[in-house]
Amino acid sequence: MIKVGIVGGTGYTGVELLRLLSRHPDVELKAVTSRKEAGMKVSEMFPSLRGHVEIAFSTPEDAKLTECDVVFFATPHGVAMAQARELLEAGVKVIDLAADFRLKDPAEFTQWYAMEHSCTDLLAEAVYGLPEVNRAAIQKARLIGMAGCYPTSVQLGLLPLIENGLQLIETSGIIADCKSGVSGAGRKAEVGTLFAESSDNFKAYAVKGHRHSPEIMQGLSAIHGAPVQLTFVPHLTPMIRGIHSTIYARLTEAGKAADVQKLFEERFAAEPFVDVMPAGSCPETRSVRGSNTARIAVHRPGNGDLLVILVVEDNLVKGASGQSVQVMNLMFGLPEQHGLDVVPLLP
Amino acid sequence: MIKVGIVGGTGYTGVELLRLLSRHPDVELKAVTSRKEAGMKVSEMFPSLRGHVEIAFSTPEDAKLTECDVVFFATPHGVAMAQARELLEAGVKVIDLAADFRLKDPAEFTQWYAMEHSCTDLLAEAVYGLPEVNRAAIQKARLIGMAGCYPTSVQLGLLPLIENGLQLIETSGIIADCKSGVSGAGRKAEVGTLFAESSDNFKAYAVKGHRHSPEIMQGLSAIHGAPVQLTFVPHLTPMIRGIHSTIYARLTEAGKAADVQKLFEERFAAEPFVDVMPAGSCPETRSVRGSNTARIAVHRPGNGDLLVILVVEDNLVKGASGQSVQVMNLMFGLPEQHGLDVVPLLP
Amino acid sequence: MIKVGIVGGTGYTGVELLRLLSRHPDVELKAVTSRKEAGMKVSEMFPSLRGHVEIAFSTPEDAKLTECDVVFFATPHGVAMAQARELLEAGVKVIDLAADFRLKDPAEFTQWYAMEHSCTDLLAEAVYGLPEVNRAAIQKARLIGMAGCYPTSVQLGLLPLIENGLQLIETSGIIADCKSGVSGAGRKAEVGTLFAESSDNFKAYAVKGHRHSPEIMQGLSAIHGAPVQLTFVPHLTPMIRGIHSTIYARLTEAGKAADVQKLFEERFAAEPFVDVMPAGSCPETRSVRGSNTARIAVHRPGNGDLLVILVVEDNLVKGASGQSVQVMNLMFGLPEQHGLDVVPLLP
Amino acid sequence: MIKVGIVGGTGYTGVELLRLLSRHPDVELKAVTSRKEAGMKVSEMFPSLRGHVEIAFSTPEDAKLTECDVVFFATPHGVAMAQARELLEAGVKVIDLAADFRLKDPAEFTQWYAMEHSCTDLLAEAVYGLPEVNRAAIQKARLIGMAGCYPTSVQLGLLPLIENGLQLIETSGIIADCKSGVSGAGRKAEVGTLFAESSDNFKAYAVKGHRHSPEIMQGLSAIHGAPVQLTFVPHLTPMIRGIHSTIYARLTEAGKAADVQKLFEERFAAEPFVDVMPAGSCPETRSVRGSNTARIAVHRPGNGDLLVILVVEDNLVKGASGQSVQVMNLMFGLPEQHGLDVVPLLP
Repeated sequence: MIKVGIVGGTGYTGVELLRLLSRHPDVELKAVTSRKEAGMKVSEMFPSLRGHVEIAFSTPEDAKLTECDVVFFATPHGVAMAQARELLEAGVKVIDLAADFRLKDPAEFTQWYAMEHSCTDLLAEAVYGLPEVNRAAIQKARLIGMAGCYPTSVQLGLLPLIENGLQLIETSGIIADCKSGVSGAGRKAEVGTLFAESSDNFKAYAVKGHRHSPEIMQGLSAIHGAPVQLTFVPHLTPMIRGIHSTIYARLTEAGKAADVQKLFEERFAAEPFVDVMPAGSCPETRSVRGSNTARIAVHRPGNGDLLVILVVEDNLVKGASGQSVQVMNLMFGLPEQHGLDVVPLLP
Repeated sequence: MIKVGIVGGTGYTGVELLRLLSRHPDVELKAVTSRKEAGMKVSEMFPSLRGHVEIAFSTPEDAKLTECDVVFFATPHGVAMAQARELLEAGVKVIDLAADFRLKDPAEFTQWYAMEHSCTDLLAEAVYGLPEVNRAAIQKARLIGMAGCYPTSVQLGLLPLIENGLQLIETSGIIADCKSGVSGAGRKAEVGTLFAESSDNFKAYAVKGHRHSPEIMQGLSAIHGAPVQLTFVPHLTPMIRGIHSTIYARLTEAGKAADVQKLFEERFAAEPFVDVMPAGSCPETRSVRGSNTARIAVHRPGNGDLLVILVVEDNLVKGASGQSVQVMNLMFGLPEQHGLDVVPLLP
Repeated sequence: MIKVGIVGGTGYTGVELLRLLSRHPDVELKAVTSRKEAGMKVSEMFPSLRGHVEIAFSTPEDAKLTECDVVFFATPHGVAMAQARELLEAGVKVIDLAADFRLKDPAEFTQWYAMEHSCTDLLAEAVYGLPEVNRAAIQKARLIGMAGCYPTSVQLGLLPLIENGLQLIETSGIIADCKSGVSGAGRKAEVGTLFAESSDNFKAYAVKGHRHSPEIMQGLSAIHGAPVQLTFVPHLTPMIRGIHSTIYARLTEAGKAADVQKLFEERFAAEPFVDVMPAGSCPETRSVRGSNTARIAVHRPGNGDLLVILVVEDNLVKGASGQSVQVMNLMFGLPEQHGLDVVPLLP
Repeated sequence: MIKVGIVGGTGYTGVELLRLLSRHPDVELKAVTSRKEAGMKVSEMFPSLRGHVEIAFSTPEDAKLTECDVVFFATPHGVAMAQARELLEAGVKVIDLAADFRLKDPAEFTQWYAMEHSCTDLLAEAVYGLPEVNRAAIQKARLIGMAGCYPTSVQLGLLPLIENGLQLIETSGIIADCKSGVSGAGRKAEVGTLFAESSDNFKAYAVKGHRHSPEIMQGLSAIHGAPVQLTFVPHLTPMIRGIHSTIYARLTEAGKAADVQKLFEERFAAEPFVDVMPAGSCPETRSVRGSNTARIAVHRPGNGDLLVILVVEDNLVKGASGQSVQVMNLMFGLPEQHGLDVVPLLP
C-alpha cells in the first residue's frame, strides 16, 4: 500500500483526490492537512465522504508527511515550492496540482504568478504531469508539476498534429476558445462565482492574458520541438464541472492530404484515458462527468483548410485530481487505471 | 419629483432598487452610497444599468442624504437604526429593507440579530412595510421597517384566513415549508452560496430557528389579533430569484364550511400585486420573475381538513425592493403601481 | 456471473442501471432491449458508457431474455406485467422499476395508472422492493415491484417511528413536502421539463393527488401494522438528480419522551445504505449524488411536539436503479454493497 | 394605435413579443393565433401574462389578420411565406421572425430549410430586419425577414470593420465561436433540450454546417460589398437566455494602424441598442437579460494581429422579438425605443 498525504484538502481538487483515493485499491490515506480545520473530520466538511474517509484534517506539523510515500499538493500556488525540498530529501515523491512546477522559466513564473520562485533547481528537475505526452519521464520522476486544466485539454487536442516536428497545421495563429465550469475557479469565497452571479450567465474572462496561456505554448512547443503560437480565450459557463475546448487550426498542405480522423484514432488507440469519437461527433462535457477520460472529435467544416477540434474533460478529474492519480500510478509502477475506473455520471 | 437616496447600493436589494427606480416616472435618484466603492460609477459595477443609471457611488458624507425626500436602506442589519434619527429629524422619510425596524420587541431583536437596538423609540413608531396588511398606516408613516422576503409570502398566504379574529384555520401548528432562490442570501462572498456549492443541490437550513420565524409570528398575530403559532422551515433552491412557500394549515369546522377559493379571490380582488390563481393551479416562481406580484393558489387535497396554500413571489421584488417602492408610492400619495408595471420575464 | 437483461434501456433508470451494472463484479450484461433503437450500440446513445458497455440494443425477440438469470424492467408502467409471467415460468427473476407491482390493490392500481392489471395473481406474489423494510422477503422472492423514488425517501424517514405498532408519532396528519430533481420526470420529450421551462423555476405539482401517495400510505400502513394517513405534496426543483423530503409529524407523549436521534441511529446502524446524520444536520442532496445512500436528519424545532425529518437520496440510485441492484444482490445471495460502492460526486 | 396580430403565440418568440407589446404605448393587440390552443386565454398558458394580456388564442380564420396594421410571424419556418401575400395585398405589413425571408437565394433556402420557397417575388422584395445595417430600407418596407439570433450578434460585431469595402480585417478566415442559451432551441418537446440533458453540460453542435452560416455570410458580404467568408461554430450553454459570440479576425495592416476601440464607439454612438463597452471589458450575457441591447467589447491580445470581438445579446430580445418590435417602430415612424425601454434583469 502506498502511503499518501494530501496538503490542502479543503478545496475542490482536494476533495476530488479524496473521492478517488478513498477507493484506490493500493492507497492508504495517511494525512490530509488544513491548518484552519485541523481536528475536524474530513467527512464533516464533506458529508459525501461519510463512510469513505475516516480521518480528520491535521496540521502540517502533526501530519508527518515525511513518512508518506507520496504527497499531493492541492494548495494555492506557492505552497508546494516551499515544502517540496524537505519531502524530496526524505525520499517522498511530490505531486503538485498547483502551478509551482509548471512553467520552466522562473521569470515567466514570476510574471504570471506574482511571486519569486523559491527553488529553481527543483523546477529544472520537475516533470510536467501530462502522461500522454511524457509518460516515460513521469515514471522515473520524484517531483511532478501537474498540467493545468485548460492546458491538458488543449495539448491533447493538438498533440497528434504537431508532435515531433509534424507539420500538419500552421503552428502559429492557433485559437483555443475554451469554456470551463465554475468549479475551475476553486472553492474560495468570491462574489464573481456566487450562484446568483454566475448562473444563467456566460462570459469570457482574462482575454488580455491568462496564466494558462504560457503553459499551453510551452507544452505545445516542447511537443513540437519548435515554437508554437496560440491565442487562448477562456469563458465561464454555468455548470459545475467540465471543460470544452474548441480549437481552430489551419491545415497545411500536408494536413489537407492527411486522414486526420485516422491519425487521431491511431495516436490515442492505446491511451486508456483519451477517447477519439467517431467522425462527425460533438462530445458533451457531461459524457465525462466524474471520470478521467478526455473525449476528442475532429471536424473540417466544408472540407476547407480550417480544422476544428473539440475536446471535453472533467476539469477536476482529467484536468486535475484524476490525472494526478494517473501520474501517481505511473510513478509507482501500478496499472495506470487503478482507482480511476469510474463510469461518468449521466444524466 | 421625489428626491431619493439609497444607502448601500452594492447588494442585490440595492441594484434591484436601482433597476426599478431608474424607470420610476416620479423619482429623481440623488445618491447611492457605498463607502468602499465611492467614486465608481454604479453602472461600472452593474453593467446592466449602463444607459439607465448615470450617477456614481458616493460616501455617506458626500451623499447629502438629508436633502432627499426619502432614503432607502439596502444595508446589512444595524445600519439603518444608526442613521435613521438624523434623517427623520431633517424631515426625510426612511424605508429600511433590513431588519432593524421589523421586530417590535427589542429583546427579541437582540436575541435574533445579536446586537442591541439603538433607538427603541423609533422602533415603536416604525410601521411594518406590508401594504396588503397595513396600507393606511404606511400612508401616514415616516419610518418603515420593510417586511422580510419569507414573511411577506407567508403572511399573504394566511391573511384571508385569520384576519380580525377570523377562525377558519387552527392558529397553532401551522407549517410553512419555504424554498428560496440563492439571491436571498445576498451578494456576499461566501462558500455556501458559490455556484459549485449550491447548483444542482437542495437543502434545508436553519431548521432549529430562523430570524424570519419571530417576524412571521409577530405579523400573523397582529393580523389575527391573537397569538398565532407556526413552524417555519426554509430551504435553499438552485435558482437565482424566487420564493415558493407551501403552507399547511388545519381547517376548523368553520373553515371546512367556507368557500376558501372565493374568500381569497374576494380578499385580494382590489390588491394590485396579489393574484389569486384559479382553483387547482400550481403557481411557478418564474411567473413572477422580476415583477412585484405574488401569486397564490389554495388546495384542499382529498377534500380533507388540511389546507395547502401555495405562494410565489420574486424575493428581490415583492420580497424586498419592489415592495419598498410600493411603500414609497403609498407614503407619497402616488398611484401604487407607479414604476412597478413590469411584465415578468418568462422564460 | 449473473446473466442480466434490461428491458427498456433508453430512459434514465435504464442508463443508470447500465452505469452501475457495468462495474458490478458478479454481473454479465446479456441484453438491453429497445424496439426503437435495436441495432444501435448502447454507447452511441449514451457516450458516457463508451468503453464500459459494448453491447447494442436488441429487439425483445432477439434478446433471449428467458436465458437470463434476472431481468430488470426500466420501462413505462404496464410493460412488466405483460411480460413477467413468461420470464418467471422460465425461471428468470424479475425486478420491475415501474409501478406494475407496487400497489397491492388492483382497483387502486387502475385508479392511479388508468389501466387494468393483467396478472393479479403475480401482483399478490410480488414483493415490495424496499430492503430496509422487508429484506427477508426480498431474499426469497422471484418477482419484485421496486419502491418508487418519493416513497423510498418518505418510508425511510418514518420507519423507526412507527414500525411494528410503535406509537411515537400521530399516524394521521403526517405531511411529506418533497422536492425532486427534473430527472424524476424521465427522459421523455415534454415541454414542461425543457431546460428553458424548468430551470430557474420552482413549483409544486399534483397537489390534488399523486400516484406515489397511495404507495406511501400502503407502505407505511404495512410497516405500522395499522392505517397511516399522510398528505404528500411533490415539487419540481431545478436540479438534475436528488430528492429532498421534509416530513412533518406530531410527536405523541411517548414520542416526546423518546430519544429520537438515538432511535434513528440504532435502527439504521446496520444498514449499509442509510446514514443518520449527527443531530442538528441539514443533509444536502448533492451529498448522495450518484450513490445508493439515503441520509437522514431529525429535528425538533423549539423542542416542541413537531418532528421535522429531512431525508435526501439520489432519485435515480436509491430511488430507483441503485436500490434495484441492492435488491438483486439480496435475491442472489451476494453482499448487498456489490457494485454499489460509489463515492458521491461532490461538487 | 397600431393594430397588431401575432401568428404563432405559443413559442418563446411569441410569448416574448407579448411581453414587450403588452406594454408598448402605441400598440393594440388584436389577435394571437394558435390553431391548437384556440379559445384558451393566452395568460392561461403563460401565467406571467396574467393582468397584462387579456385576449385568447384564436384560429387563423377567426383572427381577422387582414384588419391588422402589422402581423408578426412567430412560427416555424415555412408558415409566413404561405400567408404573407394575402396580408400584403390587404395592406398589412408583415414581419417574419422565422427564416422564410432571410436568404435571398431560393436555392440556398431550399438547401438549408428542406422546402421550396413558395413566393420568390416576395423574397426579392423582403428587407432584412437588422436596423443597424439597413434602417432606411426597413422604414420603407412592407415585408421584413428578421435577422436570426446568431447572425444579429455576429454582424453587429463585425460591422464597423468591414462596411462599405473597409479593409481593416481579412475578410476570409473569420471565426465566430458562438454560445447560446437553451431557449434558442425553441419551446418544442425534444429530448436534447430537456433540463436533465442540457443542464450542467456544454457541447458544440452543427459543426458541419448550421443554417445561420449562409445567413451570416450573406449579411456580411452585403455589408462589405464583396464576399466575406467565415466559419461559424455554435454551442449550447446551460442558461435560459443569452448569446455570447466570440469572433476572431486577423487585422490587416490598415487594421493594425487603426484605433479599433474608437472606431466601434463612434460607429455605434447613435445606435440606441448597441453598447460598446470600455476597452478591456468582458460583457456578460446577463447584463442584457430581457433587454434589446447588444453589448460589444473589442480585444487585441498581446497587441498582435488577432482581433477578438465579444458580443452579447438576449437571443429572444435583440436576437428575435425585441428587434422585431424595433423594426415595427421604424416601419410606423415611431421612436425606435418605444416599448423597449426595459432595464436588464440582474441578478
